[in-house]
Formats: sequence, C-alpha cells, structure tokens
Amino acid sequence: MVVGIAGLGLIGGSLAKAYERSGATVYGYDGNRVVQDFAKLQGVLAGDLDEKTIGECELLLVALYPEVTMEYLKKMAPHIPGTTLVMDCCGVKQEVCKVGFELAQRYGFTFVGGHPMAGTQYSGFANSKADMFDGAPMVIVPPQADDILLLDKIKKLLTPAGFSHLTVTTAEHHDEMIAYTSQMCHVISNAYVKSPRAQMHKGYSAGSYMDLTRVAWLNEHMWTDLFLENRTFLLQELDQMIGSLQEYREALEQGNGDRLCTLLAEGRICKEKVDGQ
Amino acid sequence: MVVGIAGLGLIGGSLAKAYERSGATVYGYDGNRVVQDFAKLQGVLAGDLDEKTIGECELLLVALYPEVTMEYLKKMAPHIPGTTLVMDCCGVKQEVCKVGFELAQRYGFTFVGGHPMAGTQYSGFANSKADMFDGAPMVIVPPQADDILLLDKIKKLLTPAGFSHLTVTTAEHHDEMIAYTSQMCHVISNAYVKSPRAQMHKGYSAGSYMDLTRVAWLNEHMWTDLFLENRTFLLQELDQMIGSLQEYREALEQGNGDRLCTLLAEGRICKEKVDGQ
Repeated sequence: MVVGIAGLGLIGGSLAKAYERSGATVYGYDGNRVVQDFAKLQGVLAGDLDEKTIGECELLLVALYPEVTMEYLKKMAPHIPGTTLVMDCCGVKQEVCKVGFELAQRYGFTFVGGHPMAGTQYSGFANSKADMFDGAPMVIVPPQADDILLLDKIKKLLTPAGFSHLTVTTAEHHDEMIAYTSQMCHVISNAYVKSPRAQMHKGYSAGSYMDLTRVAWLNEHMWTDLFLENRTFLLQELDQMIGSLQEYREALEQGNGDRLCTLLAEGRICKEKVDGQ
Repeated sequence: MVVGIAGLGLIGGSLAKAYERSGATVYGYDGNRVVQDFAKLQGVLAGDLDEKTIGECELLLVALYPEVTMEYLKKMAPHIPGTTLVMDCCGVKQEVCKVGFELAQRYGFTFVGGHPMAGTQYSGFANSKADMFDGAPMVIVPPQADDILLLDKIKKLLTPAGFSHLTVTTAEHHDEMIAYTSQMCHVISNAYVKSPRAQMHKGYSAGSYMDLTRVAWLNEHMWTDLFLENRTFLLQELDQMIGSLQEYREALEQGNGDRLCTLLAEGRICKEKVDGQ
C-alpha cells in the first residue's frame, strides 16, 4: 500500500509510524521541513509527499490544523488521482468536510472526513508512536452514509492504523458529540487548574486531581481554532455545565443536603446508565 | 502490633488488609455485622473491635462517615487507654478534629486527624485491597505541629499501611486544599456526565472522557455529608470554577480568538508550573 501523510505532528506522525510498521510505503509532508527530513532519516517515510508522489497514493491522510488542512486540500486537489481516498484528521468536521466534498466532486477523487479518537496531552512528531491508535475508535464522515462498498474500502485502508472500530456519522453530529466528549474536557481541565489551590496540591492530591488536570496542558493555538470552529455546540455544552454547577452551588449555599444528594445521585445514575460501574 | 479498625468499607477494609499483611493483629468493627463477620472469616481480622479489645490497641483507626466517626469516638473514648494513638480517616477534618482533640484531652489518649489520599470510585469492603495506600500520601493533623516525638511515633505506626509520605498540616488548611483537590473533582465529574451527549458518547470518546467521568460514579450520601461539612471552602472553589468557565464562554460567544487563546495559555501555564509537562 502507498500512503501519503500531510502533517507529521502527534497524529500524523503516529499514523505514518503505524503504516510504516505495516509495511506500507509512506510519503510524508510537514510544514516544518526539519520534521519532514527527520521522519525520512528515521526511516518512517520512504520519501517526500509532493505534487508528484501524491499521484501514487491510494490513501492520503491530512493531519494538519483545520485551516491549514483546507488550504492544503485546495492546493493539492488538482494533483490527486481519481483512485485516491482522501481523509482529513481534524477535530471538527463541518467546515473541512464541506470543502473536502466540494473539491472531491470537482476533481474526481473521494473525500471522507475522519477523526482518530486518540492522542495524548503531548504534541509533535517526537511524541508520536506507531501504536497510538491500536484499539481506538475512528469516526468517519463519508459523503453518503449508505455506500457500503466505500465503507468497506475505508475499513481496509485504515486497518494498518490499528483502530478497533469505525463510527460512521455526519459532520454535524460528529461536531455536536466532540464538543462534549473532547472539547469540554479540555476547557474544564484548563479552567479547573486555575484555582490558586492548584499550585499547592502536592501532598494533598491523588488520582482525581491528576485525571482532571491531565489535558490542561494543551496547545492553546490548536484548541482555539477547534473551539471557534465548533462555537455553537461548545457554547451549548458550556451552558449545560455552568448550569449544572450552579445547581450544586445553590443547594450547597442553602445547606440543602437532600437537594445536594439528589443532584449527586442524578449524576451517578447518568454514569451508571451509559458505562455501567 | 495490635491495631483496631472501626469501619470496614473501602478505606477501613484496605487498612485492615494492609496491617494484616504486615503481620499485625487486627481487631475490626463495622456498622454492618455481616461485613465484620466476613472480614473475620477471610482472616483479615483476628477478632471483633469492642469495648474490651480496644484496650489492647496501640493504634485505633476510625474509617466511618464523619458524623458516625464522631459518635463512635464519643461512645468509645472512656474505653481507650492513654497509650493508644487514635486517628480518624474522614475526608474533612475541622469538625472531627475538634471533637477528637477534646475527647483525647478529657480521656488521656492521643488523637491525630488523618486523611489517606487514595481510593477508587468503588466502595465497600469487597473493593478494598491491601495495597490501596502503597505509595499514596497521608495527610495528618496532629494536636501540635512541632511534637517531633509524636510525629515519629505516627510514622512508625502508619508504616505498614504503605504510605509514601506524610503531609503535616492544620485541619483548616486540609479542608481548604481538599475542597479543591478532591471534592471539586467529584462535583465537576458528576455535573459533566449530566449532558444529554454523555448517553451517546460511545464511539466518540477517548481517554479525556473516561478520565473526567471516572468519579461521577460516587456514593451520594457520603459525599453530601463531606460537602456540607466543608461548605465554605467548596463554595469558594465552585465560584472560582464557574467564574473561569464563564470567561471561556464569553470569549467564545464573542468569537474572540485572542482572548480564548490567552485563557487557554493561562491554564496551560498553571499546569506546567506545578506539575511540569
């Protein structure tokens, strides 16, 4: 298999390493030439991904920031053959899928939105690893939901990355879900660690603190872009969360133990219902 | 060593198993007679902790709910010898230490507030384990901060439980810190999982969601008591958190990327400063 990977950060770098591990020929591109050359030196890349080598790729994975992904797709579209499956890896899907689907129709290739559901609080090629996606879910946004042949092709092309299963959805539903499952975690973690008590936590903290502050250490530029692109859904979740916290606050201020206990039981039941114990 | 343990839930059960593991003679008591008998059958307890056997204990650890701990201490105080070190395990310290210090003075034993900084989202003797506290911090609230001989005695008596180090502080400072490092984590997790999107998270979630919802599954009765006893400090943290979230909300609603990026960078720096990368 010949795979092109644009963007060799945490996600793109991990994908490159996973495909290289599987025996695929991987061409890569990164905005930072040093990273691209380093990936070649390491043997992860067989060569540069450019206007020429892109023509050999059965699969093109674009793991750049959302805005840069769209620019890259526009620039490279004329060079992408009709046989290539193009997939982005952005954390928000509505805008990028709109652009991707339009370009695909115009230039004759196939575009599918993608969001690999893994990662760490670290970024960059240096932190990427071949097994990053082993057992992780992959969300995909195909142009049509019922194109079984295409879904089968996607599954085969993504197999070397190690995903445990594919979630097929629309760009809108993806963005609504991701505002909650991922973006809010980052906002909450980042907000939580701002308490003055955070700076004195050592000796007074255990697993809960570490879990809750893990993703506070984030790349603020990337997340700002992602948040702005998903503004409506993220605002909905922020309002939901602030509203919930205010309910606990009110019960506590009133010293209303019954109400507080009910609020906590409601949350416990939500967790129990969806994840069991 | 002879140790008495009152309350055989997750914390008390784990302590009992740890001391038993170290070769100590452990007497135990639980409000639920079935649990107490089960612990004896399992060989964790050498016998019942009662008005008689309490007289043999060098160390008495009370791991009951805060209100029940205070009742238990009042009831048992006349039977506790002057040589015994009594320590509670409550998640809030101001009230219980006040009661404990007064009883100690009146009856001649030594009381020290304690809070083992470990646990899981599960509760009960069935989930307790001997290595629960291996490597965990233990916060202690001695009657005087500078009684080196007492601190040395505490350290020796607690060694079999496996703690990595002792944090010595006042009841008030403990409660202020714990409102942030532990109580807020539970409120936030419990509030976060109430979004309607939580019930559809599967296939769209990864580590961040799992980390953030882990402690949503809590014992609402225990936590209600703990929250009410620490009302002032917890309200302070809730206001801090709601205020922070509202700042992100405002920047997002205004589509103010610079402001959003600054807010996220501030959080990232807080995390970096105290925990490194």
